[in-house]
Amino acid sequence: MTMEKNLWKHVLSVRQQSPLVHNITNYVVMNNTANALLAAGASPIMAHAKSEVRDMVTIAGSLVINIGTLDEYWSEAMLIAAETAHSLGKPWVLDPVGAGATSFRDDVLQQLLQFRPAVIRGNASEIMALAKKNQTTTKGVDSTAQSNEALTAGASLLEQYGAVVCISGALDFIIGHKQIICIGNGHPLMTKVTGLGCSASAIVGAFIAAVENKTEAATAAMALLGIAGELAEKHSQGPGSLQLKLIDKLYNISEEEFLNNIKITLQ
Amino acid sequence: MTMEKNLWKHVLSVRQQSPLVHNITNYVVMNNTANALLAAGASPIMAHAKSEVRDMVTIAGSLVINIGTLDEYWSEAMLIAAETAHSLGKPWVLDPVGAGATSFRDDVLQQLLQFRPAVIRGNASEIMALAKKNQTTTKGVDSTAQSNEALTAGASLLEQYGAVVCISGALDFIIGHKQIICIGNGHPLMTKVTGLGCSASAIVGAFIAAVENKTEAATAAMALLGIAGELAEKHSQGPGSLQLKLIDKLYNISEEEFLNNIKITLQ
Amino acid sequence: MTMEKNLWKHVLSVRQQSPLVHNITNYVVMNNTANALLAAGASPIMAHAKSEVRDMVTIAGSLVINIGTLDEYWSEAMLIAAETAHSLGKPWVLDPVGAGATSFRDDVLQQLLQFRPAVIRGNASEIMALAKKNQTTTKGVDSTAQSNEALTAGASLLEQYGAVVCISGALDFIIGHKQIICIGNGHPLMTKVTGLGCSASAIVGAFIAAVENKTEAATAAMALLGIAGELAEKHSQGPGSLQLKLIDKLYNISEEEFLNNIKITLQ
Repeated sequence: MTMEKNLWKHVLSVRQQSPLVHNITNYVVMNNTANALLAAGASPIMAHAKSEVRDMVTIAGSLVINIGTLDEYWSEAMLIAAETAHSLGKPWVLDPVGAGATSFRDDVLQQLLQFRPAVIRGNASEIMALAKKNQTTTKGVDSTAQSNEALTAGASLLEQYGAVVCISGALDFIIGHKQIICIGNGHPLMTKVTGLGCSASAIVGAFIAAVENKTEAATAAMALLGIAGELAEKHSQGPGSLQLKLIDKLYNISEEEFLNNIKITLQ
Repeated sequence: MTMEKNLWKHVLSVRQQSPLVHNITNYVVMNNTANALLAAGASPIMAHAKSEVRDMVTIAGSLVINIGTLDEYWSEAMLIAAETAHSLGKPWVLDPVGAGATSFRDDVLQQLLQFRPAVIRGNASEIMALAKKNQTTTKGVDSTAQSNEALTAGASLLEQYGAVVCISGALDFIIGHKQIICIGNGHPLMTKVTGLGCSASAIVGAFIAAVENKTEAATAAMALLGIAGELAEKHSQGPGSLQLKLIDKLYNISEEEFLNNIKITLQ
Repeated sequence: MTMEKNLWKHVLSVRQQSPLVHNITNYVVMNNTANALLAAGASPIMAHAKSEVRDMVTIAGSLVINIGTLDEYWSEAMLIAAETAHSLGKPWVLDPVGAGATSFRDDVLQQLLQFRPAVIRGNASEIMALAKKNQTTTKGVDSTAQSNEALTAGASLLEQYGAVVCISGALDFIIGHKQIICIGNGHPLMTKVTGLGCSASAIVGAFIAAVENKTEAATAAMALLGIAGELAEKHSQGPGSLQLKLIDKLYNISEEEFLNNIKITLQ
């Protein structure tokens, strides 16, 4: 079986297993994230109360932690959830939104890393800030840094914490345990829709719950979102229509559409 | 006047009175909930500060409490609001999202029930968990339980707390003070849009503010959302477009569309 | 250069400079606000943690404070942020959502005013409540008060705090340091979409970061949103589609569309 066909099989696995994905994410994207997970076939849960995050992690198939609008309370809840996932052996995704922008974020992120996410997904700036490599200026959530430096930073995170690292950008890179995969899908208009990176992290969360090989899981998730965005853009008049048509396409994408459009290369 | 025509009259009452509906709801659905209320002709308020919830309940026509993303602070605010509504005789709706998933949720729900909601709306799993009848496994917010057990649980909640109970599902059941009504509207794709159950609860909140008979109010609200969803789905390519077209249809639904499509039966 | 052409130049300045706009806003509108800012060419940041708001204000070009879903914690964060902006000389926008509805809101607003917003944007009721002029009944966030009284209230806020005041309604009024400008753009259906007033405030935030003259900045921002809404409405079937098509139009509006549709008059 080719790698592409194998990735499509993972898309079907998520639809068939409909894993319960527990999200502790930011206020901006909660609605979109839940809709993206539903469209991909997963079952989203959003819960952050310190009184119940342990219980929620326990019943979930995976956990997604996104620090976009973190504060002191939410940080504590995230740490409890990450610790619970780590101790139960449940895979979890870390989305280090705005890493490098404030020392508060960086402190929380360093604590979260101790609980060993299965996957880290961010843009180049965030991955570099997380690896404490090259401190570039964070401007919003867009990457201003070079791919090569980010790849080095990602490899260092993989080595230190054992996490598969996804670096999102015009090209997405998946730094896996045995290989680096480059995905050429997506469209520049996607950067004008808020929170598609957060949707990507959540979808990665669905795939790591359903697929044993975390490198393949992350690759399939990122390719799915990129292809869906690319196809949705063709029928969009701007970022407003893209946001909605992307959800439609995540829901109704066919094997043919996936296999005819996927652009992956091994580095 | 037939029951159907009477329900349409209630739709018009909401549009004419434009009741102020105070929502303490979850982060995921706040935007959609506000838009659904506006589209149905009501005036939404979202406020949760302990310092002001009493004042807000006082000026509102009704209250909607939805525990989707509750935490310790929000639970306290919900209890203050419910107590205020109870003492002022203002009708309120309880949406027990995720009941049965964690003991934290169940504890908060039992406290809220003491303040006598006019209507409780949930899926079959949630209604059963709330009635402490059959503890089924909650998987996300989808119901996995049987209708019959849920009807028994609903009847028990009505008897114990005096609340009209709406059980959402492929068929919706309204367990009223004198009758049980079954609504056959809606479309399966609606389960792939996050928070339409929450929108349903909010719309019920608008109707109980404008309509004296709470069984009829709840029935009209649930029928309206079901019909709007059904009609919207015909022009949707997936859950993304359904979410938006449903809002359009809630806003522009005509008497003819309502009466030609409503499917209600008395049990 | 005519005033209209000058305003279009400001639209282009925002697109070219892509200012970083720090928002401490309400849960209901965060997604839409971020998307409106991205569509207009700005870079949104949403952050509210007391541990990091100072740092965020420092790196941002402007700040937007919207009290829609305030509580005790968020109020403190807003005050820290406003104080920081004031001391650094960064321009900020105050959106006094629901002013007059509760004494909690009014207390927080009076404290915020001490830190001298560059622009205040609200509906007539809110502006009057803020100026402690005529206390009218707040019903949701819609204005029930007369324009004339609101203009007097706005002028008093300008005199007392030095802020440009925008009063939104069927006509928008910008009360500037040397003139009052009336904008006749927009469409009534925009009042059925939640949070477009909040989007307006955020876009004003983007413009004051990029344009030195705050009266012109506020005028350009309000005209842009009004024209985009007006043009988007022509292709909308209700408030659901308007919400999305407005974002599309904010993104792709042309100079010709802007100049052919703008309706401004000096009072």
